[in-house]
Amino acid sequence: MRYELYYWPGIQGRGEFVRLALEEAGADYVDVARSRGGIDAMMKRMRAPRQVHPPFAPPLLRAGDLLIGQTANILLYLGDRHGLAPKDADGRLWTHQLQLTLADLVVEAHDTHHPIGAGFYYEEQKKEARRRGEEFRKTRLPKFLGYFERVLDRNPRGPGHLVGARLTYADLSLFQVVAGLDYAFPRAMKRVARRHPLVRALHDRIALRPPIARYLASERRIPFNEEGIFRHYPELDA
Amino acid sequence: MRYELYYWPGIQGRGEFVRLALEEAGADYVDVARSRGGIDAMMKRMRAPRQVHPPFAPPLLRAGDLLIGQTANILLYLGDRHGLAPKDADGRLWTHQLQLTLADLVVEAHDTHHPIGAGFYYEEQKKEARRRGEEFRKTRLPKFLGYFERVLDRNPRGPGHLVGARLTYADLSLFQVVAGLDYAFPRAMKRVARRHPLVRALHDRIALRPPIARYLASERRIPFNEEGIFRHYPELDA
Repeated sequence: MRYELYYWPGIQGRGEFVRLALEEAGADYVDVARSRGGIDAMMKRMRAPRQVHPPFAPPLLRAGDLLIGQTANILLYLGDRHGLAPKDADGRLWTHQLQLTLADLVVEAHDTHHPIGAGFYYEEQKKEARRRGEEFRKTRLPKFLGYFERVLDRNPRGPGHLVGARLTYADLSLFQVVAGLDYAFPRAMKRVARRHPLVRALHDRIALRPPIARYLASERRIPFNEEGIFRHYPELDA
Repeated sequence: MRYELYYWPGIQGRGEFVRLALEEAGADYVDVARSRGGIDAMMKRMRAPRQVHPPFAPPLLRAGDLLIGQTANILLYLGDRHGLAPKDADGRLWTHQLQLTLADLVVEAHDTHHPIGAGFYYEEQKKEARRRGEEFRKTRLPKFLGYFERVLDRNPRGPGHLVGARLTYADLSLFQVVAGLDYAFPRAMKRVARRHPLVRALHDRIALRPPIARYLASERRIPFNEEGIFRHYPELDA
C-alpha cells in the first residue's frame, strides 16, 4: 500500500514527525502537496464534502480507506504497523504519552513567535513574542528538556531510547524537536547543553541511522525556515 | 480495581475530561488530591524518584501497576476498558483524532488569558490577552465549533454522537468544552449559537445522562472559576 501524506509543502512543521516515521520504516509514500497536485490537491482532500471523517488541519495520512488526522494519532497508527512502538499495551501508552508531551512542547515553541495567534504576522506581535520567548527559554525549555533527560536516564533498558530497548516514533520525534530547537534557539540550547547529555546523544545517534541520514541529505528534507514551527529570530534567542 | 486520579484539587482543568469518563463509566475511583493526602500526595506521586514512567504534568491516572499521563492518552485507555470508544481500529483512531482536536481547542481557550505564558499572572498580560481573546472569539472559536458541527452532521449513524451510534469519550469531552466556553465567553457563545445546533443539542443531552447529571449536581463537580482553563473575564468576551 502506498501512503499519501498531506501537508504544507514549504515547511517541516508537524508533517515532519510523520515524514520521519515513514522514512525510518522505509514505507512507500507520496508527499502529495510536494508532488502532483500541490496545495490544491491537499485542500481538495481537506474539504471533500463527502468525507465522513473530515480533518481539522494537516497533516493527514491516507492509508487505503483510512484518512487519519492529528500528528500523534497518525504516529499511533504507524507505530503499530511498522514496529515503531512496543506491542504491549503498557509500552504503547507510554510511547504515546511521550509523544503528546513532545506535542505540547511543539505548541509552546511555536507560540514564542505567535503568542497572540496564528492570525497575525510575527511582525504584528514582536513585542509580545519577546516576552514569551524569554519565558520559554528560561523556564519551559529547561523543564521540558530536563524531563526527557530524566526519562532516558530512568529507562530500565538503558538510556539509548525513550522506551524499552528499541527505537520508537517518540525517539524520532525527540530528535526532530531537538533539531528544531537547535535551529530556533542556538544560543539558549548551547547554554543548557551540558545538562542534557542523554537527549543530545539520542539526537546525534538518530541523525546517523542510515534511513534517517539518507533522508536528511535528500531533497525530501525541507530546510528549516521562518515559515515553520521552529523559526530562528535572533531577538527571541537573546 | 480502584483507580487513582491525580489532579489539582481546586479546578476542573484537564482533569475534568478524565473525571467525566470515570463518572459515565461508573468506575470506582478516588480523586487523590481532593481527599486523603491532598496536593502533597499528588506531588509525591509526580516526583517519585523510582518512577520508571515519570509524568510531565497532571492529570495522571493510576490503574493497578500503570501510571498513565496526558489527558488524551488516559482517555484512550479508559475508552477501551469501559466501552467509551469503538472496538474497531478505524473507530478508535477517529475518536482519538477528535479528542486531540478538542485538546488543541482547550490550549487555545487557555491561552486567551495567558498568551505570554503560564509563568505570569493574568494581570501581567491583560493587554495581550485582550488581543488574543478577540482573535479567539472572531476566528478560532467559530472555526472549531463549525468543525464539530460538521462532524456531527456527517456522522452516517446520525448527529446524536460524534462517532458511530454510541457515546464515546469524545462526546463527553465536547460537552465539557462547550460548558467551559459557555462559562468563559457567554456573549460570544450566544452570538454563534444558531450556527451550531447539533453541538448544542449534544451538550444538552450529555448533561441529562443520569450518571453525568448526578455528577454535575454533586460536590465532586468543582465549579468553574478563575484559576482553571475556562475563565470568565468579561473584558475577553467583549
